[in-house]
Amino acid sequence: MADPVAEFRARLAADRLHGASELARQSLEFLSELARRTAAPDPATLVADLCAAADFLVATRPSMAPLYNLLGRWKGELARCGHLPLAEARATAAGAAESVAAESKRAVDRAAGHAATRLGAGCTIATLSLSSTVAAVFEKLREAGVRAIVAESRPLNEGHRLAAALSAWHIPTTLVTDAALGRYAAGADAILVGADALTADGAVVNKTGTYLLALTARDNGIPFYVCCESFKRLSPSSEGPELEEMDPAELGAPELPGVRVMNPYFEVTPARLVSAWITEAGVERGPRAGATGCHQ
Amino acid sequence: MADPVAEFRARLAADRLHGASELARQSLEFLSELARRTAAPDPATLVADLCAAADFLVATRPSMAPLYNLLGRWKGELARCGHLPLAEARATAAGAAESVAAESKRAVDRAAGHAATRLGAGCTIATLSLSSTVAAVFEKLREAGVRAIVAESRPLNEGHRLAAALSAWHIPTTLVTDAALGRYAAGADAILVGADALTADGAVVNKTGTYLLALTARDNGIPFYVCCESFKRLSPSSEGPELEEMDPAELGAPELPGVRVMNPYFEVTPARLVSAWITEAGVERGPRAGATGCHQ
Repeated sequence: MADPVAEFRARLAADRLHGASELARQSLEFLSELARRTAAPDPATLVADLCAAADFLVATRPSMAPLYNLLGRWKGELARCGHLPLAEARATAAGAAESVAAESKRAVDRAAGHAATRLGAGCTIATLSLSSTVAAVFEKLREAGVRAIVAESRPLNEGHRLAAALSAWHIPTTLVTDAALGRYAAGADAILVGADALTADGAVVNKTGTYLLALTARDNGIPFYVCCESFKRLSPSSEGPELEEMDPAELGAPELPGVRVMNPYFEVTPARLVSAWITEAGVERGPRAGATGCHQ
Repeated sequence: MADPVAEFRARLAADRLHGASELARQSLEFLSELARRTAAPDPATLVADLCAAADFLVATRPSMAPLYNLLGRWKGELARCGHLPLAEARATAAGAAESVAAESKRAVDRAAGHAATRLGAGCTIATLSLSSTVAAVFEKLREAGVRAIVAESRPLNEGHRLAAALSAWHIPTTLVTDAALGRYAAGADAILVGADALTADGAVVNKTGTYLLALTARDNGIPFYVCCESFKRLSPSSEGPELEEMDPAELGAPELPGVRVMNPYFEVTPARLVSAWITEAGVERGPRAGATGCHQ
């Protein structure tokens, strides 16, 4: 029989399209199923196996703070399951995974709500890649007459997927190459990105190209907003984000002697370039808080 | 019989790989041939036809100052051909085209020499796209232990061609997406780009993505050098560069209602971000002249 943890892990490792929050929630759903079904002779073994599975998944995508934080929170809930009868332990562990995932979803929704309020009606908002949180902000603003500028986000062009969602919501959208973001984002009212993680000092781990967007925002006096659930925060004691390098072959470049092709999905944008971090708790002003967006 | 001017014009319009100087020189070579071979009953008709052909080519790529400047200079030389016997008029017009092209080539070579001296040995130099002038700088530095960081330059990835040249010259090269230029160029000693045109106030018309490179340079205290022959300068009376929009289909994005795909090849980087303009005349300090490069 195939090992379901190894199978899910392979899917998680290969996923290039979903953001960190979404993948953390998918992981919790998987762990909930695992809690209900995995073979385990007693509650203590169940808890140990589930913890090991969670750790294995967290290690798969080290750039993604929500995996660490949400699965870590779930592991905290598992502790009490070891003292319950097996069937009850399974149900409690499964329910806890579902409730952590639901909490994350509510947090994203609330963060997106704060961002939508901050941005207001009539804004032109520039972004890159596909963040489920940024998509949620646009969805909330779909009746508000906003416009979008979206970069394709090489190498896999997941910006095309965001453009498809915006198209379905009837939000007028301009789709450009990543290189053209400077020219186009310069004309936006605000720049909005999600995050795969926030470091303890507020730096933003996000899709490569985010730093260039933040520089464009500063050079044009446009606010640079980071919207994410607070589960994206790395603890001060964490060793800092590990930035995953992906397969260079995705760039489709010729193989040449002495030419190293690098394909980093993530980069760190320093906190000094952030106008505000917007989480479920509200709007936290950043060093560039002076820049005003659309309707402030 | 096919019209050779229309044929060459179509090739010029479709060329997405060569820079402005190179295309201007190719145009002069074509015009030299045309001067020798085109049907013309008398010298005055010859001159009028050649002038019309030159104007036609200039209008084909309006973003490219050297086409305007070099072909304009050649047109100036044509004036005296109208008073010569036909055979001599042909030879003079052809020779003038060749000598303007040669002058441009010498200017590029001299500009590249100044840039190579400025950069010096051991530098890591970041660039994007494929500029024949930037390539000439690297060729001059190929024994000098330099390294290169090159962006692919979507949509047509002509950065791959520069990487191939660098590979042939044994210059260790890192090839990245345009989005990753911020992260990688931040670690360079200098950023070096060519130009398709320089406006009268020193702004740089160049491949889209150049503005983002210039912002990265400033944010990291790295010099941002623009190297080109002075034939790239637009006259103060010119109406400013017309920035060509290319076929959106080149991006391979899905067609979606309400989503406009934009594919501009060129953008304008303001003079305030330039550390120095390096031409055949030498190094002219820019507003960001304070930043020091590798060996200064």
